[in-house]
Amino acid sequence: MRWAIRLEYDGADFAGWQLQPEQRTVQGVVEASLDTLVNHPVRIRAAGRTDTGVHAEDQVAVFDTSATRTARNILAGLNARLPEDVACKDAREVATDWDPRHASHTKTYVYRWLSGPSRSPLRRGRVWHLRGPLDEVAMASAIEAIVGQHDFSSFRAAGCSSTHPVRTCEGARVIRAGDEVQLEVRGTGFLRHMIRIVAGTVTEVGQGRQSADWLAEVLAMRDRSAAGRTAPARGLTLRRVDYARPEAGTV
Amino acid sequence: MRWAIRLEYDGADFAGWQLQPEQRTVQGVVEASLDTLVNHPVRIRAAGRTDTGVHAEDQVAVFDTSATRTARNILAGLNARLPEDVACKDAREVATDWDPRHASHTKTYVYRWLSGPSRSPLRRGRVWHLRGPLDEVAMASAIEAIVGQHDFSSFRAAGCSSTHPVRTCEGARVIRAGDEVQLEVRGTGFLRHMIRIVAGTVTEVGQGRQSADWLAEVLAMRDRSAAGRTAPARGLTLRRVDYARPEAGTV
Repeated sequence: MRWAIRLEYDGADFAGWQLQPEQRTVQGVVEASLDTLVNHPVRIRAAGRTDTGVHAEDQVAVFDTSATRTARNILAGLNARLPEDVACKDAREVATDWDPRHASHTKTYVYRWLSGPSRSPLRRGRVWHLRGPLDEVAMASAIEAIVGQHDFSSFRAAGCSSTHPVRTCEGARVIRAGDEVQLEVRGTGFLRHMIRIVAGTVTEVGQGRQSADWLAEVLAMRDRSAAGRTAPARGLTLRRVDYARPEAGTV
Repeated sequence: MRWAIRLEYDGADFAGWQLQPEQRTVQGVVEASLDTLVNHPVRIRAAGRTDTGVHAEDQVAVFDTSATRTARNILAGLNARLPEDVACKDAREVATDWDPRHASHTKTYVYRWLSGPSRSPLRRGRVWHLRGPLDEVAMASAIEAIVGQHDFSSFRAAGCSSTHPVRTCEGARVIRAGDEVQLEVRGTGFLRHMIRIVAGTVTEVGQGRQSADWLAEVLAMRDRSAAGRTAPARGLTLRRVDYARPEAGTV
């Protein structure tokens, strides 16, 4: 049987999603908990492999098991075993060929800036704190450039394993929420560090060092060196994964 | 000179506000940082002494110093010295007789419940997680009973040092915010654990174990044993302190 689980985690103390020797990763911690729940080694596969320090409010992953368990067993058993910085929010049986990465889906990420003279202890590790002001109106105008299908080479980190740099951004917006500025980006897939490089680049617009048109120019150059710095991982959260036909995946 | 500072802190790793031997307290940590900033021992006094585990988004405290410092010096110097779970948000000179507790003011506290089957790693230590549903409409109706001047003996913890149990609640409301239910309470002063006992009591209304009228009945009994349990400290945050005449306090 194949099970899909939804996970929330605080990325601060994880070396990202993906299993790595000698490192504490989300995949490693969840697999270890599942192993003892179903009494055999388990491998999980996620919709999106988040980087070190990146959070998830609603990640989706699957695993296969021969053990007989109810959804309630898995949810309760997993949460009893998982450490406090990761939790399972849902478990449901899916078709044995359903894959969270290949099934048609949209991932929504949020990048959060805290703009103001002092840092926030209650949001530490969750936002990128910048002391100066951010012009969210200019940022909102600039970000429109990335919506649609584009060659995102300018926003692609060195070491990106994708075979081609074209991706479709289904939506992007910048809003102000009190003393925070937030960037929300939706798409089926992203290049390595793409959202963080977009965030770092639009930051320069927000700080008034570049005009709102600059993001479109950077995109057109297809050159990583044209873009801004990679924004810190701690400001990034995978908000949710939406499947086009969720019912097709469930048994 | 007397300075007023505004502080934000994550209460999780503090044994509350008040200085205690051998314990890590907010007062102790802030005083130690101020000592090295002004080069003499400093005593601070807060608008409200929060309990162990209780957070503050905007606490107000004062201290006196003979050292010559600008507001900018104090803000930057304090933040450079404070640990990551406490920060100074503002510093300003006030009249030497201005006292954050005696000046006419209103404190606003928020109590947060997370209602649902699974816990939230990203909000751990900030909410009281209850697996079952909460009826926020019944809670909102019930909470109206505490608004106004009352004898709050039913919501007063053992060991409360106040000389009388009458307090004025200037406002109280319960709202739903996504998967959270939040109680906001405003008043000039509260008895020991008063808001947490009110929160624990209104929880029983939310869980359907008591009717919405019950809170008024508990209040009328003036008996701690009539009320519900004390809700966990981690769900409570001091949101802000508003002064009636803020300009009167500043030089």
